[in-house]
Amino acid sequence: MSIIKLVLMRHGSSIWNDQDRFTGWTDIDLSEKGKNEVKYAGKMLKSFGYSFNFAYTSLLKRAIHSLWVILKEINQSWIPVEKSWRLNERHYGALQGFSKYEIEKKYGKNQLNEWRRGFSISPPKINEKDNYFILNDKRYLNLKTKKLLPFSESLKSTIDRIMPYWDGNIFPRLQNKEKIIIVAHGNSIRAIIKILCNLNEKEIIKINIPTGIPLIYEFDYNMVFKKKYFLFDR
Amino acid sequence: MSIIKLVLMRHGSSIWNDQDRFTGWTDIDLSEKGKNEVKYAGKMLKSFGYSFNFAYTSLLKRAIHSLWVILKEINQSWIPVEKSWRLNERHYGALQGFSKYEIEKKYGKNQLNEWRRGFSISPPKINEKDNYFILNDKRYLNLKTKKLLPFSESLKSTIDRIMPYWDGNIFPRLQNKEKIIIVAHGNSIRAIIKILCNLNEKEIIKINIPTGIPLIYEFDYNMVFKKKYFLFDR
Repeated sequence: MSIIKLVLMRHGSSIWNDQDRFTGWTDIDLSEKGKNEVKYAGKMLKSFGYSFNFAYTSLLKRAIHSLWVILKEINQSWIPVEKSWRLNERHYGALQGFSKYEIEKKYGKNQLNEWRRGFSISPPKINEKDNYFILNDKRYLNLKTKKLLPFSESLKSTIDRIMPYWDGNIFPRLQNKEKIIIVAHGNSIRAIIKILCNLNEKEIIKINIPTGIPLIYEFDYNMVFKKKYFLFDR
Repeated sequence: MSIIKLVLMRHGSSIWNDQDRFTGWTDIDLSEKGKNEVKYAGKMLKSFGYSFNFAYTSLLKRAIHSLWVILKEINQSWIPVEKSWRLNERHYGALQGFSKYEIEKKYGKNQLNEWRRGFSISPPKINEKDNYFILNDKRYLNLKTKKLLPFSESLKSTIDRIMPYWDGNIFPRLQNKEKIIIVAHGNSIRAIIKILCNLNEKEIIKINIPTGIPLIYEFDYNMVFKKKYFLFDR
């Protein structure tokens, strides 16, 4: 059976992942643990003979650097890479920079869970005076002028901003039988999985994406979803 | 005075540079020495406050990986990067893989110098049975079908294949005042310098490009060349 394989991977563990802090759009790099995770993922992709025509990633370095490690390992540093803010992590608003413990202490467990696991609930907006207000960054100037800049996002709003990019950019390449890898974030990958497998709100909020493990989605040539699996278990 | 700055850099020293072997299109990675060179170049660019809107590189990993190190150091991994075979090193044909010493012993010093320093003299073509015939590589499939694939190049033919890319792609961005870095190879950078400064054949063959040192070219807003300098001396 002829198949199209799409490879999705969440970046390796970042310095803030290791500290259990909300990161969102804060541009935190991979930790040593994370670098090792993605190096292993690259070696495994290589050992299974994966190769790609095109790669997508976000504008955040924990994802970009994870992709670079993968491409080096599979000896495909030369493939085209497109980076887009639309694949960024969900913007966690005023929670960014705080640990889950700190947020729980301040707002209570129920509120924390609503923000983490609700489908259309956004945390409080980030304030321009916030330490982690990085939205003046040059890479987002265009979003600012176009009024697309988010100050906080729910999973729903994350999906909404990914949809046009998926429809207009990624999906046409898949239909064209290109072999694609997307290295992104927990919630941007959940968004893609919701689109791919047509999941409802309840189904998607239950799915957790591990760091640094390639997820393989297989389709037939009519883009009918066939099966999915992790490349390996940790 | 308002200026446009273009940054050109030859990749850091590769494993074959260190062995004084003709590399051309053979895809040899940076040596440890080369990695250190480009890391230093990145730190220097950062200390002088350089930032970029757009980066160009070739399809060869010694250039791509040099660029990645630079972007990491200046904290600009997120900028768009376009990779093109048109920025590849000159194809050294049947000389690829051999050391300058071996070629001199086989063909004599005069012939070696003609191939190295002549403007429009191509070395013998590479043979499909050659160890370093990497032209079946997927990244060049398109060139093969379009009959653009070179089997050997002179500096002149290198310039000829860079010209359309310069005119149609890089130059319009410069005119648009974008801040650009190009990380490429000894001869693809010579080609660009010849175009930029309108040098003649005799002038360009005398210019040597050191590995891992950013070259800065300044222009006014009418794209009139003003001055050039190395970011630092080694």
